[in-house]
Amino acid sequence: MTRFCLFGAGRIGQIHGANVAASPRAELAYVVDVDAARAKALAARHGAKAVEAEAAFADPGVDAVIIASPTETHAPLIEAACAAGKAIFCEKPVDLSSARVQAVVKVVESAKALVLVAFNRRFDPNFAHLRGAIDEGRIGKVELVAITSRDPGLPPLDYLRGSGGLFRDMMIHDLDMARWLLGEEPTEVYAVGSCLVDPAVAQVGDVDTAAVTLKTRSGAIAQISNSRRAVYGYDQRIEVFGSGGMLRAGNMVENTVEIMNGDGATTARPLHFFLERYMAAYRHELEHFLDCVEHKKKPIVGIQDGMLALKLADACVESVKSGKAVKV
Amino acid sequence: MTRFCLFGAGRIGQIHGANVAASPRAELAYVVDVDAARAKALAARHGAKAVEAEAAFADPGVDAVIIASPTETHAPLIEAACAAGKAIFCEKPVDLSSARVQAVVKVVESAKALVLVAFNRRFDPNFAHLRGAIDEGRIGKVELVAITSRDPGLPPLDYLRGSGGLFRDMMIHDLDMARWLLGEEPTEVYAVGSCLVDPAVAQVGDVDTAAVTLKTRSGAIAQISNSRRAVYGYDQRIEVFGSGGMLRAGNMVENTVEIMNGDGATTARPLHFFLERYMAAYRHELEHFLDCVEHKKKPIVGIQDGMLALKLADACVESVKSGKAVKV
Amino acid sequence: MTRFCLFGAGRIGQIHGANVAASPRAELAYVVDVDAARAKALAARHGAKAVEAEAAFADPGVDAVIIASPTETHAPLIEAACAAGKAIFCEKPVDLSSARVQAVVKVVESAKALVLVAFNRRFDPNFAHLRGAIDEGRIGKVELVAITSRDPGLPPLDYLRGSGGLFRDMMIHDLDMARWLLGEEPTEVYAVGSCLVDPAVAQVGDVDTAAVTLKTRSGAIAQISNSRRAVYGYDQRIEVFGSGGMLRAGNMVENTVEIMNGDGATTARPLHFFLERYMAAYRHELEHFLDCVEHKKKPIVGIQDGMLALKLADACVESVKSGKAVKV
Amino acid sequence: MTRFCLFGAGRIGQIHGANVAASPRAELAYVVDVDAARAKALAARHGAKAVEAEAAFADPGVDAVIIASPTETHAPLIEAACAAGKAIFCEKPVDLSSARVQAVVKVVESAKALVLVAFNRRFDPNFAHLRGAIDEGRIGKVELVAITSRDPGLPPLDYLRGSGGLFRDMMIHDLDMARWLLGEEPTEVYAVGSCLVDPAVAQVGDVDTAAVTLKTRSGAIAQISNSRRAVYGYDQRIEVFGSGGMLRAGNMVENTVEIMNGDGATTARPLHFFLERYMAAYRHELEHFLDCVEHKKKPIVGIQDGMLALKLADACVESVKSGKAVKV
Repeated sequence: MTRFCLFGAGRIGQIHGANVAASPRAELAYVVDVDAARAKALAARHGAKAVEAEAAFADPGVDAVIIASPTETHAPLIEAACAAGKAIFCEKPVDLSSARVQAVVKVVESAKALVLVAFNRRFDPNFAHLRGAIDEGRIGKVELVAITSRDPGLPPLDYLRGSGGLFRDMMIHDLDMARWLLGEEPTEVYAVGSCLVDPAVAQVGDVDTAAVTLKTRSGAIAQISNSRRAVYGYDQRIEVFGSGGMLRAGNMVENTVEIMNGDGATTARPLHFFLERYMAAYRHELEHFLDCVEHKKKPIVGIQDGMLALKLADACVESVKSGKAVKV
Repeated sequence: MTRFCLFGAGRIGQIHGANVAASPRAELAYVVDVDAARAKALAARHGAKAVEAEAAFADPGVDAVIIASPTETHAPLIEAACAAGKAIFCEKPVDLSSARVQAVVKVVESAKALVLVAFNRRFDPNFAHLRGAIDEGRIGKVELVAITSRDPGLPPLDYLRGSGGLFRDMMIHDLDMARWLLGEEPTEVYAVGSCLVDPAVAQVGDVDTAAVTLKTRSGAIAQISNSRRAVYGYDQRIEVFGSGGMLRAGNMVENTVEIMNGDGATTARPLHFFLERYMAAYRHELEHFLDCVEHKKKPIVGIQDGMLALKLADACVESVKSGKAVKV
Repeated sequence: MTRFCLFGAGRIGQIHGANVAASPRAELAYVVDVDAARAKALAARHGAKAVEAEAAFADPGVDAVIIASPTETHAPLIEAACAAGKAIFCEKPVDLSSARVQAVVKVVESAKALVLVAFNRRFDPNFAHLRGAIDEGRIGKVELVAITSRDPGLPPLDYLRGSGGLFRDMMIHDLDMARWLLGEEPTEVYAVGSCLVDPAVAQVGDVDTAAVTLKTRSGAIAQISNSRRAVYGYDQRIEVFGSGGMLRAGNMVENTVEIMNGDGATTARPLHFFLERYMAAYRHELEHFLDCVEHKKKPIVGIQDGMLALKLADACVESVKSGKAVKV
Repeated sequence: MTRFCLFGAGRIGQIHGANVAASPRAELAYVVDVDAARAKALAARHGAKAVEAEAAFADPGVDAVIIASPTETHAPLIEAACAAGKAIFCEKPVDLSSARVQAVVKVVESAKALVLVAFNRRFDPNFAHLRGAIDEGRIGKVELVAITSRDPGLPPLDYLRGSGGLFRDMMIHDLDMARWLLGEEPTEVYAVGSCLVDPAVAQVGDVDTAAVTLKTRSGAIAQISNSRRAVYGYDQRIEVFGSGGMLRAGNMVENTVEIMNGDGATTARPLHFFLERYMAAYRHELEHFLDCVEHKKKPIVGIQDGMLALKLADACVESVKSGKAVKV
């Protein structure tokens, strides 16, 4: 039985807390949140205790931490958890500054800490199945990857201001997926970005629509496109083309019903947003983390992956500014 | 908070027990099973107690019972629950004899008991959405219903011997769906049945493949087909054709991945069997039951529905024997 | 080069005439129609001559006839063509009376005439591919066949009056498909029919909605459903379930475009009606006939098939009247 | 009736020749080809005459020319046709040198000649329907275009040597589609290319796999990807995302049959290659040209479009060389 302290009792923290509570292999011992009432409520729901961070780190009965608190707390909490010898499950991003992430990587490595960086899509059953088919050689060598990722609607401008921008906040997921599916590091990054959804996005120095091209040393290519607003819902699709075939993972939809009338045949919208779409991914992510803790295995997505995805996001930002491809 | 006693700790009882335990509106108080060890294990998992039936019925703190024990116990347990004033959630069928069911109906009616007969498919989100679209008038008046229902593989012959036969055990679900979707009682039933999967099925007096036609007074028609063995998995589809269009609910599949190669484009199999396929249905069924208990509402599928579906199944059996259509 | 005389310059005659004219293996020599102007116009379009029937039969340079004139002329024209030693391509039905068809069969057999009865669906590339997959053993032994066939709209009542009724006019196509796909003769027929589209249909003694069950000696089952009005267009689908899998042939649609918005994903309607849907079938049907003429082969669908399909249609009519299954 | 002279009796010339011959609005008068036997054979098939170019240009009864001869003859033939006052239907590309194309544009403009440059995909019924839906405002303002275009197999190296390279030979179609769908000229082009299919392609100075990003002044973005070899067949898909929804046009497939077995559900491959896939497009292209000739209208795709697509292809080549985005 792995005992957890959960940092952060917000939307995503609640998901992870409930998954820990529901797992027969895990126990939610503590919840930490600056909002004491919120911490208490979540703790109560799952038979845990709301405490200060220090108390949790000091308890030798705590095996692992889940870091789902605001981004700026991730790096110090990882470092503290390393010092306390806890296994670490950290929401992305590790930090918005790659220098800071680099420093965290050193701490993690010297502590030989077990760290999973929670790029949830790697644990989505559909994408995991697709990746498994690549590994089985079903499409030969990977040549072209196309990732489409669109949110249902623009987040509040306040959120955008602190987000690090579309490339570090949203596309970083797709950059991680591209690395994972290409099976090779990109060496060249080109990005374009536009404000098409709302001009206010430009005023906070961000873009709401973007397209990126990655190229690896061996010549494999990935194309990614992002939009902050798809009127039909959360659009998360992947296509991988190889020497022996093609794989596609489409959207999960609200139901299987088709209606036919004079307009044609209409099927349901995609599941609304990430909490619905990646519900299974969050569970599988935790199960994988528990496997790693129980058997002292290395997570399939660690602190290095967090850093490399951020470096690609940084390169995207630089490419948009310079109008040039950037070597990485 | 509704407190439950669960009768039956087998496969389906475990599903219902876990759903009760997971619902914030419900509590699993007792588990009853002739296999005491099994009852104890399930009770322990959810913080309940394994007891004898009498103890559960006698406890005024028990609001409701879930009857998921063997078929022959359903009728006496319903009657006992009526006597004890409990709300009743009963797995189908109520009984294999329609005379016996008729007797139970009388007891239920005189006790004014709240009874939900667990035809799980009515609570499947896909089928419920389809039915909702009919209610909204999206396809006008219903004229033709087509129900395809195929199991992945033949159950053990021992199971078949006690099952009441394909029509009362398997097709009864489809007969209930047909009634529900036609929105009108069938008045004419014609059935054919064959042993195509395994000749041993004939030796136990059953069929493994069947097709039924229902016709209502107003002339609407339903066609149902069943097979006990579909090599590609559990096949559960519905099509409803009306004066203004058509609705179809297809299978839920294992994942959204498509692979393309020289053979064409291949997508995943249906979810394996009823526990996977109707996982959400079981949860929604319980939620509906809780709504009824909390607000003293009549369930959308009650003891009368259990009886009418059984009468249609009886008519199918008679039609196969006589080779004639049967009026009901 | 096979030289043709075409009987009937109406809608379907024009299709066959154009296909003959376009084939490098065929030549349209004559057109015969009681409407002389219509015959002349069609003949002129393809470099043929409008003549009386006698002249065409008397010309030894005519190898084959296409009979696309009104139903009541089919039987006498087949007999005349047999007498004149021409190969015969005859639109369905041979006649509405099975006694009359039986008489024609005798004439054809004693003349050893080459006769193709134009059940166009057998030549549809989709259905032919499906049948090919059965022949290759892709789904093992056929156990259940489901045929859905719906017209876009009710024909004029005048047409219905002379049509022989839904079973002989419309469902006869599906009865032929069922025989072809079952690979075995049905021995039991049950049919229900209703007037749901328009009560005027009942006044001309016909139905507009119907469902049929066929069962073969070995126990294989076919279910067919027909409606005279599908608001979404011409609906022509087939599903064949076997011991080793399932085959489905869906509708051909107007285009491949999908539109996604807040309502979901909408794809195009089926091709409007039989002239569009079976355009390729008509060409392949002619090519098959030419193959038979050139190599003195037996067509895959001959005069016996015309008779057997009609007998099944007759059994449907009888079943609707009697409310009983009919042995054939 | 428009009378044509066809230049080029090869694969594509044969298609256009047959379409002219089959159209009731057109007549194939002459065929010109350096291979006299080939010209004669094609002419004979359609009742035309094989002649020298001069004779055709000199005949005042010739209204229009179809130029389907080798690329290097396109420019001089267009100029000669301008001089002779003929309407011009010219296969793409006009020329591989944009300077040469620029010179042709001047000749065409001063002659006020009617010129259609045969970007066949604009006339594909699926893509035309998609474009029509954009024009009707079905998806609001266009923001992201994604074009996937893959050939079934690498052409012979000899072909590649004279082709102008992947960007001018293959992707030029997609560049034209992107311009057409964006509804606005791209101002920035970035391209990457790789040799992944066959290293011999690099030896002739070409690439076999490529990805391009286009951006317009208003910020709309197009992503294109090309491969010379898709083992599953000819892959031609378009997706257009806009402020109000998304449109997708998928592949046309060999048939509508689906087979389900233990591997899942398999549907047919795409139509093999361009002659099958764009069969309808070639017919519609000719019909559009005839409309323009008969009503003195401007074709929807003219000599300027040929030049602008070539300039984008040139920019792609430059971008691959320099590793930088190129302003156009």
